[in-house]
Amino acid sequence: MRSAPVLRNVVRSYSQSARDFPTLTLDTMNQQVLKAEYAVRGEIVVLANKYQKSILANPTNHGLPFNEIIFCNIGNPQILGQPALSFFRQVTASCEYPPILDKPGVMPADVKQRAEKLLTAMGRTTGAYSNSQGVPIILQDVAHFIEQRDGHPCNADDIFLTDGASVGVQRMLRLLIKDDSDGILIPIPQYPLYSASIDLYGGHRLGYYLDEAADWRIEVPELERAISDAKKNGINPRALVVINPGNPTGNCMDRKSMEDIVDLCYRHKIVLMADEVYQDNIYREGHNFVSFKKVLREMAPQYQKLELVSFHSVSKGFYGECGKRGGYLEMVGFQDAVKEQVYKLASIGLCPNLVGQIVVDVMVNPPKPGDESYELYKKERDAILSSLKRRAILLTTALNKLPGMSCNPAEGAMYAFPQITLSPRAVAAALAQNRVPDAFYCKELLDQTGVCVVPGSGFGQRDGTWHFRTTFLPAENQIQSVVDKMAQFHVKFMEQYK
Amino acid sequence: MRSAPVLRNVVRSYSQSARDFPTLTLDTMNQQVLKAEYAVRGEIVVLANKYQKSILANPTNHGLPFNEIIFCNIGNPQILGQPALSFFRQVTASCEYPPILDKPGVMPADVKQRAEKLLTAMGRTTGAYSNSQGVPIILQDVAHFIEQRDGHPCNADDIFLTDGASVGVQRMLRLLIKDDSDGILIPIPQYPLYSASIDLYGGHRLGYYLDEAADWRIEVPELERAISDAKKNGINPRALVVINPGNPTGNCMDRKSMEDIVDLCYRHKIVLMADEVYQDNIYREGHNFVSFKKVLREMAPQYQKLELVSFHSVSKGFYGECGKRGGYLEMVGFQDAVKEQVYKLASIGLCPNLVGQIVVDVMVNPPKPGDESYELYKKERDAILSSLKRRAILLTTALNKLPGMSCNPAEGAMYAFPQITLSPRAVAAALAQNRVPDAFYCKELLDQTGVCVVPGSGFGQRDGTWHFRTTFLPAENQIQSVVDKMAQFHVKFMEQYK
Repeated sequence: MRSAPVLRNVVRSYSQSARDFPTLTLDTMNQQVLKAEYAVRGEIVVLANKYQKSILANPTNHGLPFNEIIFCNIGNPQILGQPALSFFRQVTASCEYPPILDKPGVMPADVKQRAEKLLTAMGRTTGAYSNSQGVPIILQDVAHFIEQRDGHPCNADDIFLTDGASVGVQRMLRLLIKDDSDGILIPIPQYPLYSASIDLYGGHRLGYYLDEAADWRIEVPELERAISDAKKNGINPRALVVINPGNPTGNCMDRKSMEDIVDLCYRHKIVLMADEVYQDNIYREGHNFVSFKKVLREMAPQYQKLELVSFHSVSKGFYGECGKRGGYLEMVGFQDAVKEQVYKLASIGLCPNLVGQIVVDVMVNPPKPGDESYELYKKERDAILSSLKRRAILLTTALNKLPGMSCNPAEGAMYAFPQITLSPRAVAAALAQNRVPDAFYCKELLDQTGVCVVPGSGFGQRDGTWHFRTTFLPAENQIQSVVDKMAQFHVKFMEQYK
Repeated sequence: MRSAPVLRNVVRSYSQSARDFPTLTLDTMNQQVLKAEYAVRGEIVVLANKYQKSILANPTNHGLPFNEIIFCNIGNPQILGQPALSFFRQVTASCEYPPILDKPGVMPADVKQRAEKLLTAMGRTTGAYSNSQGVPIILQDVAHFIEQRDGHPCNADDIFLTDGASVGVQRMLRLLIKDDSDGILIPIPQYPLYSASIDLYGGHRLGYYLDEAADWRIEVPELERAISDAKKNGINPRALVVINPGNPTGNCMDRKSMEDIVDLCYRHKIVLMADEVYQDNIYREGHNFVSFKKVLREMAPQYQKLELVSFHSVSKGFYGECGKRGGYLEMVGFQDAVKEQVYKLASIGLCPNLVGQIVVDVMVNPPKPGDESYELYKKERDAILSSLKRRAILLTTALNKLPGMSCNPAEGAMYAFPQITLSPRAVAAALAQNRVPDAFYCKELLDQTGVCVVPGSGFGQRDGTWHFRTTFLPAENQIQSVVDKMAQFHVKFMEQYK
């Protein structure tokens, strides 16, 4: 009978230990990670995924008032049926499995040529680590593209290929934020990659408001206000982030505004970070994309000292190759020693994925007139771009007709960011659910229609105003029904809480 | 004539401003980034790349005493001619460009089947963002693989796909390191991803020495010493990193040793991080890989509270798909709330690249006996594995015959880590060049032979001992000549500095 007490002791000792597990909790983990928020894949999206799981598991008996989820929360064109460009995929497939190139009649001549060129440069495989900066020949193709686009020289040594633009943005923010005395100027509203990463790296978000009444324009006095407030609080502004065309706002900047920003960064000695991932998504009549690099190079000599880093991605434009995680950044005006630090950060992660690098190459160097693939490429490109433009106009026009809703034109990018006027009763109903009012609106929209959009509070907005961000990416044969769902819901919601 | 003074004023004001540019310097940047070191792509490798550029630019007149660089600095098998597995690439190519599947006689039946299954799960494209955790069906295939491997249940919710194992390791370290009172136990020698990432996140490296005299075994008393030293210095050990099979040491752990480590982590309440990326690279006769998850599951009930995170990658094994940046981690024993934070970090980067995810799927679920591709798959796999084993033995045997060189057997992984005994004259010659002695040795080896290896000081070693890490990845028809070059250089070096 001696065993019982011993056993009890053992059990007691286990439970004491067990109280110490798990060792990693929300209290003991890194608090900067805990603080970071990323709304584009936040609460509403988690709920949408849950609904989709229910529908897939029980197609006929899911108990929801809709039969599909329409994901308008994220710029993910191919998931909504936008086709991949044939040339892009013929090249990636040929590099993946080169024996295809030997089969007659499978790949066009220019695909073979491009695949051969890339295979030679990569050591004849997509399965090897490349240089951490990227495959040299692809860096050169990017530099050539930038030269042609801007009409100014570009050095391949200034280019770093990255796994999507996000990785590049994060690397630059990591270098720039020394400690919690540093801040980064970001627009309000902004793409939450910036706010989340600044939180992660322990810096301060220095928000500057875009002027909604002026098509989301950036105003220099507002930037000066943000800089001056920061300095009053002992925060050192290290960089200014500009997203052009805008996300979530869809605005396109004019040249004068860009020059003013270069001048401001020069005067205040801050780095300019130009997020130009939507450079191929311009719908404003007569407007052509101009890069900050071009604007800078055409300004007076003293400005050439400015440190400018620009970002581009294969995820957007008319190619929409989000899943490839390809992108690049260009650094001009930076010390070589600083570029070496960017190289070192890249090398710790070894290299950007090679298929993503290949897609960057075909993005910056697509088929040219006379090439076997050119006609098909042009046809596919033009169809996607003209359809995106039609959908942008269809969506914003419809939203502007609704009571209590107003939406600036989507001049570029893939989003509309309408303002919704919520009644005191709607705000009270939201607060009763412990929800931000626009999150309440978006959740109701999802619950009633299956349409998933992101609350404006996830991007930032002026106090007391409410918005949501929606893409206009549902396919052409679906967008009208999505807009109808949004409109019917909105009218009903406004009626219910009037 | 009024313009001259004005112009002078303007010029003066420009130069004053110019003194403040660039704003981002080694002094003003983040100092944790500056501190981080990554030797695998460090000084010697930068020099090797420079030599290679010269050779390519001037094949007949480069002025170097060799005509090619042999990169033994990094586990990058395909760059040295290891072929990709046909099944892997047929599946990725088919997913990239599905019209291939309609061409008769191009793809085997099981490739079509797998590609169709994956395309359906991905929304019929590799160009869309997936769930940030990974494509659900691939998560399930990974869970099934782990169940089969270990004989214990695995929950797909515990799996996160990642862009290579490095990203997963970094995410976990980021969560674990709260501030500079936290430390992570890492082996000496270790893979520098760990030291670099701990530096980046502002934690302490708590080194524990592997026992070189006992085939690089991990000894519990040495771990206790490292923990006790940390606590004396006010550092809280949060996690223990174990690399098995070892990098750079090539050792394979036995089960008893693994049980001791689980027990130690349990007693000290620390997270166990198991880097098992070389699980398919085992050359020790009669030794089979056993995962830490299996060892843990077969221990007493109290241990099941332990938090264990395990890492795997598509870059190593017999597949060697480094350029794909594919991998996964499995978290067991962790709070759901903590897993949600890992999900959030993943979502800020959107998702792992889709082609990398596909390669994870074929790695964990390769062709089975009876499948059309099985015989070819088996033939390719066995040829690579038996060749790697032959090369491991050839290299270590040859190195052990050299005076002043001793090398433990490469029981696993892709590396040998020989110790070199350097004479006082060699050490003095190194110090005269302001170089660590083993870096001096490696630079001389590169300068004289074109063979690029990494100094032991980049991985850590006991004070006063010197090593280098070399892969045994040069192709079978090249490895003998690489070994001969190393041997001839070594004998000459020892003679020169005797």
